[in-house]
Amino acid sequence: MISLVGAGPGDPELLTIRGLRRLQDADVVVHDALVGTGVLALARPGAELIDVGKRPGAPVPQELINELLVQLGRSGRNVVRLKGGDPFVFGRGGEEALALIAAGLDFDVVPGVSSVMAAPAAAGIPVTHRGVSASFTVVTGHRQRGEAAVNWHALAQVGGTIVVLMGVAQRAAIAEALIAGGLAPDTPVAAIRHATSSEQHVARCALSELADADVESPATIVIGAVAAFDLTSEFIRGLAVADT
Amino acid sequence: MISLVGAGPGDPELLTIRGLRRLQDADVVVHDALVGTGVLALARPGAELIDVGKRPGAPVPQELINELLVQLGRSGRNVVRLKGGDPFVFGRGGEEALALIAAGLDFDVVPGVSSVMAAPAAAGIPVTHRGVSASFTVVTGHRQRGEAAVNWHALAQVGGTIVVLMGVAQRAAIAEALIAGGLAPDTPVAAIRHATSSEQHVARCALSELADADVESPATIVIGAVAAFDLTSEFIRGLAVADT
Repeated sequence: MISLVGAGPGDPELLTIRGLRRLQDADVVVHDALVGTGVLALARPGAELIDVGKRPGAPVPQELINELLVQLGRSGRNVVRLKGGDPFVFGRGGEEALALIAAGLDFDVVPGVSSVMAAPAAAGIPVTHRGVSASFTVVTGHRQRGEAAVNWHALAQVGGTIVVLMGVAQRAAIAEALIAGGLAPDTPVAAIRHATSSEQHVARCALSELADADVESPATIVIGAVAAFDLTSEFIRGLAVADT
Repeated sequence: MISLVGAGPGDPELLTIRGLRRLQDADVVVHDALVGTGVLALARPGAELIDVGKRPGAPVPQELINELLVQLGRSGRNVVRLKGGDPFVFGRGGEEALALIAAGLDFDVVPGVSSVMAAPAAAGIPVTHRGVSASFTVVTGHRQRGEAAVNWHALAQVGGTIVVLMGVAQRAAIAEALIAGGLAPDTPVAAIRHATSSEQHVARCALSELADADVESPATIVIGAVAAFDLTSEFIRGLAVADT
């Protein structure tokens, strides 16, 4: 049995009940670098943990990960492929699923809480809010080979919230393209790093200041009027951290 | 203590661990109609369940829900406000949070697995896929008072996946606007109803056929090349249902 499991945004209590069950039944867990240690600690004691995190400088090619999953699946062990957030949101879960299908292996998919919503929520930002934002678009700043270019001009015209994942390195170009496309330079921006963990850090600025803002990768960048919201308080933020 | 909790897409095992803890500690649960009975069954026996589901014909105005939450919060009982999917994705969680802040009440937010990703995933559709879709936009077809109009023309130009929530009644107008905006009439569409439950039903068609497709509300409508994917098999779909 192979299971593609979304680990959620970081906080282990934001794993789903089914995700927890799969982890507790796993003989081997193949995980990304972005998966928090707290989630990994929920795996059955004695389970083998394999880190295939695509770290800069030492990336594991996707083809090798696919091959590893197929080999492990054929071994008859219970395999969990644990991915940060949700498996199908820029997680290349679809490619892994296709590899498993091609190999004739059974698997299931356990969706996870995505950083797309959870990172803004942890900073007190709703991705939608009546009268403020009636849509949100999720894009990645990091383009893979074979990926179509994002039409930033059209995106600027859509009018809703924009959530950029893996976009820290490209933030200057993204801000420039969105302003060229019609977004106001003073559009609020929030960049959330280590969301839902004790190291969570939120940087807020205007879109025109994003290029020079002190933001480290990886971060979730929220662009739009909702980014000015702060529906948390120190109490709430403290609580979210304290009970993980 | 008041907690705004995302119930996930329907399947009770897709509730988060923290969401489960909050439900088990709750004296009173204020829930929407969209929250599945399986999730409600996880509440502490003896907890009071209050249905404020906005059913057609007998809607509970948002102002009354806000007021109810404030009253319950002041009573000193443990209150869970349980919302389908994620509280901040068209859930008006932001408005409830603002009401609690205005009343000086402490609360926390527990993100949930959103139908935005989970409903497509349950139908074997990844919202992003390398080389196919590098972004996704989430819109609601049901516009609230005070809501800005969705710029469907710009959205058609963005080029990624479009996920429409609460759009069944407006599907003819949405399809027409997207085609007028430049989307190909043969763009694949999938409409997922009762996602992740034993009653799950997936309808697939081309965008030009959406108006006449047999789709009942509520459904999650996915528009774009990924909607042609089916990474599940009967086995997988059966499994997802069987173990809830």
